[in-house]
Amino acid sequence: MKVRIGIVGCGVVGTGTVKLLLENAHIIKKKTGIDILLTKVADKDWERPREIEVPLNLRTYDYMDVINESDIVVELVGGKTFAKSLILEALERGKHVVTANKRLLAEDGFEIFKKAKEKGLYIGFEASVGGGIPIVKALREGLVANRINTIYGILNGTTNYILTRMLEDHMDFSHALELAQKLGYAEADPSLDIDGWDSAHKICILSMIAFGRYVPFEDVYVEGIRDLDLLDVELGKELGYTLKLLAISKRTDGEIEVRVHPTFIRSEDALAKVSDVYNAIMIEGDFVGKTMFYGKGAGSYPTASSVVSDIVDIAKKVLFCSKDHDEFQWENQPIGIGKNFYSRYYIRFDVPDKPGVLAGVSRVLADYNISIASVLQKEKVCKLARREGEATVPLVILTHKAYEKNMQRAIEDIKKLPIIVGQPVIIRVEEEAY
Amino acid sequence: MKVRIGIVGCGVVGTGTVKLLLENAHIIKKKTGIDILLTKVADKDWERPREIEVPLNLRTYDYMDVINESDIVVELVGGKTFAKSLILEALERGKHVVTANKRLLAEDGFEIFKKAKEKGLYIGFEASVGGGIPIVKALREGLVANRINTIYGILNGTTNYILTRMLEDHMDFSHALELAQKLGYAEADPSLDIDGWDSAHKICILSMIAFGRYVPFEDVYVEGIRDLDLLDVELGKELGYTLKLLAISKRTDGEIEVRVHPTFIRSEDALAKVSDVYNAIMIEGDFVGKTMFYGKGAGSYPTASSVVSDIVDIAKKVLFCSKDHDEFQWENQPIGIGKNFYSRYYIRFDVPDKPGVLAGVSRVLADYNISIASVLQKEKVCKLARREGEATVPLVILTHKAYEKNMQRAIEDIKKLPIIVGQPVIIRVEEEAY
Repeated sequence: MKVRIGIVGCGVVGTGTVKLLLENAHIIKKKTGIDILLTKVADKDWERPREIEVPLNLRTYDYMDVINESDIVVELVGGKTFAKSLILEALERGKHVVTANKRLLAEDGFEIFKKAKEKGLYIGFEASVGGGIPIVKALREGLVANRINTIYGILNGTTNYILTRMLEDHMDFSHALELAQKLGYAEADPSLDIDGWDSAHKICILSMIAFGRYVPFEDVYVEGIRDLDLLDVELGKELGYTLKLLAISKRTDGEIEVRVHPTFIRSEDALAKVSDVYNAIMIEGDFVGKTMFYGKGAGSYPTASSVVSDIVDIAKKVLFCSKDHDEFQWENQPIGIGKNFYSRYYIRFDVPDKPGVLAGVSRVLADYNISIASVLQKEKVCKLARREGEATVPLVILTHKAYEKNMQRAIEDIKKLPIIVGQPVIIRVEEEAY
Repeated sequence: MKVRIGIVGCGVVGTGTVKLLLENAHIIKKKTGIDILLTKVADKDWERPREIEVPLNLRTYDYMDVINESDIVVELVGGKTFAKSLILEALERGKHVVTANKRLLAEDGFEIFKKAKEKGLYIGFEASVGGGIPIVKALREGLVANRINTIYGILNGTTNYILTRMLEDHMDFSHALELAQKLGYAEADPSLDIDGWDSAHKICILSMIAFGRYVPFEDVYVEGIRDLDLLDVELGKELGYTLKLLAISKRTDGEIEVRVHPTFIRSEDALAKVSDVYNAIMIEGDFVGKTMFYGKGAGSYPTASSVVSDIVDIAKKVLFCSKDHDEFQWENQPIGIGKNFYSRYYIRFDVPDKPGVLAGVSRVLADYNISIASVLQKEKVCKLARREGEATVPLVILTHKAYEKNMQRAIEDIKKLPIIVGQPVIIRVEEEAY
């Protein structure tokens, strides 16, 4: 049984996908009986060096050749404008689509999935989240019997690499970023990664699958790691916490929380041990309990592995199934996204090293019903963190669970206290990431 | 779209499955459009206490009621004799089957899958390996594009719990086993778990999926943890290794290795951090690289989650698909299973504390081309391990990679040396379990 595949965009992932299909098509046929026939690969530049030579007869400059000569169109150009019109055009012409374009699906998925549904066509997007980790399939099919309550994800390898260097090698953010760029883990313009957008796109997609509702991307709370101070990474370590850029999706009463921000998790928890460029997603369902999926979250080959698993899944349906039976379905009505998070907080203030400071701060916290779990001894902090020529010392407070709104108000009041120097640092703490 | 489900065997997993279907059927319908209708549950004893009351109208004592009134028969009785005849009878009568029976599939899977194929019926067995972890689906579908090279599994929660207690709490084997039994993690007769059979059944099933060949269970090398000495767990820890009962399946040239035995893995590796009753499976594919799947490997609810995901998968095919398209397929011709493993070794000898001992032992190892990587200093070992009234001290040797046959021969020769007291301890070391 033959299926014709065409690829638009022969960059890193596109080249990896071509390589995989050339090398493993026979293995896939043996496993599934499906014959994947790569018909055309479109790119605007066939001169640039690639890991493998794409056979001349497959090359084209015209994406319409790909659409015309394939049953499944693989979109690997990335970005939004052209990728979107390409996908809509492919659907318009009755072609199924496989894409790794997390940004497009998170921001404009509604329109694309709606169009696919109208046409009775499939959109495969395993490669959009977690690189080679089959997380979309696990969430949609493997855990289908569960009511999903929580998703914790380390979904961006670049930021996880930077945070690992900060934690393990005491590098500050800018040096860790430089190193990541030197190693090719970070783009020249790293903002999509380090400002949390990439993680946000991915958790938005996972949330739509988990909760079966349209999740408006603009409502996702996003905070990156650009302004992180090494001092907080190390003070947190002292307290038994590891700092991660965590993507969080939680079912709360009636609504959900979808957020990405630097988060302290307990250093003994499984997610805390996910280091360097690795990704991991922890899912908690009402029957399965906690499961974790771990692997390389990016890269040419792992992503190609996911692209081709989508191709095979769609091919099976096209070849053997009478009708659409599990197209990604959600209620169009957007789900309410809560903003008043309820979590523990790590707060650091720079304060003069004199009495009365803690009293003032804790009074304000008390006014907002925020109770203090622990305070990091100033003496201890000093040794570790007093910096050259600084007249102040850090005061670190770990709170019990509190509401975001109260915390924000409390911080505003505390900043008005004469004893506080500069901006307080606030980092949320999650204790269930094991 | 309705599918009728019947369950035979209402023990722990059966009851969990009934509970799941009663509580989450509406969620599953919303996600997939499939209406799972539980028609009958058969058990020989409806008096014994269960976590939930099975509705009277669902109960029966006669498994034939289940077969007659369902499209998919869920076998949860366990064991071999009755379970096998039940499954064959269900297939004979044109019913699809879902089972959690790893032992039956590993030992008699050939006959069962053959019968299902003849009849064009499906066998779902996600629940047979890794409890709630959707590992069968990940291996068959999510990683379908890969040539699978290695599988490392911690597949038995009971033994992993015992080993965790030994490592972390310095408990010896028998006390750790007692504790596991007290907590309900180990059976009164624990041999299926602690002697490695349960892990062997599971790795056998995973190997058949990964390599697409019939893997004769009797050829799987199985060694349990019953005779483990706490001393070796702690000496290994000293050397930076964590002892796990590892299930290993490897592609070697032309054949495969399938084995279960106590194994030292590097303490910093991801698998080493899988503790207590948790399971984890690490799969290495040629494109995806290393991925790991982690979760509760047993228990009523997680296993029910897998049972129902199989029900949904089969229901989709039955309701929407024209023909069998991915029934578990393998080449009937059994795959050759290698016995001459090639790995590093940890060897401990009890020797008198006098000169010349190491010289004698290392000479024999050299005769068999086994080179020594490191020797644990006796002084160091003494402090840690000299026991009351013992005239001997342990001598620990870590070798570089060597062939199993050479190692066995070398040990036989070494045992003949007058300096060696008692039985040498041999534990294999795997360094790629990250």
